[in-house]
Amino acid sequence: MELWYTENQTPDLRIGFRVKAVLHREKSDFQEIAVYETEQYGRLLALDDVVMTTDRDEFVYHEMMAHVALAAHPDPRRVLVVGGGDGGVVREVLKHPVEEVHLAEIDGRVVAVCREYFPAIAAGLDDPRVKIFVTDGIAHVREKENLYDVIIIDSTDPIGPAVGLFQEDFYRSVHRALTAGGLFAAQTESPFLNGELIRGMHRFLRGIFPVVRLCLASIPTYPGGLWTITLGSRGPDPREPAPGRAVPGGTRYYSPELHRAAFVLPPFVSALVEG
Amino acid sequence: MELWYTENQTPDLRIGFRVKAVLHREKSDFQEIAVYETEQYGRLLALDDVVMTTDRDEFVYHEMMAHVALAAHPDPRRVLVVGGGDGGVVREVLKHPVEEVHLAEIDGRVVAVCREYFPAIAAGLDDPRVKIFVTDGIAHVREKENLYDVIIIDSTDPIGPAVGLFQEDFYRSVHRALTAGGLFAAQTESPFLNGELIRGMHRFLRGIFPVVRLCLASIPTYPGGLWTITLGSRGPDPREPAPGRAVPGGTRYYSPELHRAAFVLPPFVSALVEG
Repeated sequence: MELWYTENQTPDLRIGFRVKAVLHREKSDFQEIAVYETEQYGRLLALDDVVMTTDRDEFVYHEMMAHVALAAHPDPRRVLVVGGGDGGVVREVLKHPVEEVHLAEIDGRVVAVCREYFPAIAAGLDDPRVKIFVTDGIAHVREKENLYDVIIIDSTDPIGPAVGLFQEDFYRSVHRALTAGGLFAAQTESPFLNGELIRGMHRFLRGIFPVVRLCLASIPTYPGGLWTITLGSRGPDPREPAPGRAVPGGTRYYSPELHRAAFVLPPFVSALVEG
Repeated sequence: MELWYTENQTPDLRIGFRVKAVLHREKSDFQEIAVYETEQYGRLLALDDVVMTTDRDEFVYHEMMAHVALAAHPDPRRVLVVGGGDGGVVREVLKHPVEEVHLAEIDGRVVAVCREYFPAIAAGLDDPRVKIFVTDGIAHVREKENLYDVIIIDSTDPIGPAVGLFQEDFYRSVHRALTAGGLFAAQTESPFLNGELIRGMHRFLRGIFPVVRLCLASIPTYPGGLWTITLGSRGPDPREPAPGRAVPGGTRYYSPELHRAAFVLPPFVSALVEG
């Protein structure tokens, strides 16, 4: 049988996955949600035909989105994840001694589908420290002040419902919603394919946060294979784990040494975020 | 017009490039050589339907294959490139004060096609320090002793003509062909998709070279997007540029800081090369 799920990563670039079975497809109020059983990467979640995560490479994205920001904070107690309805970032956040994790996911159906088809990724969602808000993350953040030590923006691409999560207004709200020494981490696309987006975001973020940094992670199912995480901080420099912070064991991509190395940028990437 | 070049990166994974024009196709004595003008990555060279290089991302592979090994050697004078008929690695090697660069490429047609269609990549091939041997790299290396300070193995995948370049016998010859403090660098595929190959090679290489290391580079047009370079040394530890070595300017991926960071491996990659 020749069944393939193909993503148009750009109008001129495609990735294709051989599919064993189509496990789920639905149109929610916000997007099309699909789950495929692929040969190469196990189960794959796609939203509006864009790969969000797969069983085999999810560890890279979820570990890096969570541990870099959390390890950089000396004492993260209250954490917000915006988007991230699959639960992968929440699962990693819970490996730190946090008191409360809020998840603001606009599409409750993503949470429900992931609980059913990605139990290992959604595992943390039932932890008593977790509170799920099915709501627009932008509105959720706008109403908060001085509340979160870390905010992680685990968004889809900057089209459709996630556009606002890449804009200046939202990051002014993020700054307000953070505690005095707080910081955020956001997925900010590919340095090979989305350089102008990264450049533009860093330009306005430097007007909002005293410290703005970029780090890299290799995610094979994302366009270009190399992904950026942008961090903005009201306190600690996210390039280093905070002194004395114990980092969770058992990670497969993250380590304290890798944390530091992920901020060493190839010159073509530094050029995007300098000046 | 909908014209796509599609590579089956594995039996279960594909990458597709929208094609503006098919510039060249031929069957040489060794392989099918094709040059496409793609929208996303500019000109693309494929051998037996596997992407070798593209105009837009070639800098990553060629810089990392050349500069890591050359910067690690205190005084590289004579360098051999095995494979690499496009000339990209040679071009980068020539940015160091070397005296002689030998290129042992089995397929003279690759050299000719790249001179015609990739003039910026093949640029170094006419440098008076370069000598091109159209020959089997394995035989070329087997006949040499104590000759090269650095050997760079820029091979195709371990199928077809390049199989021998991933085997123990060849690396015994490489050890003999190197000078006493010499080292080699070889492309050794993807840590996500070819873990067992990497594990097996490191196992036998540790029996041949006193120092064996792995570093990483992100190459969007290669399967999985993250690539490994294996280095084996009879002298210096390749994880560091040699003290006092001036490193060529104008690189877009390589820098001395990136050199060190490229050897910091995510735990799932370290696990492939330990013990």
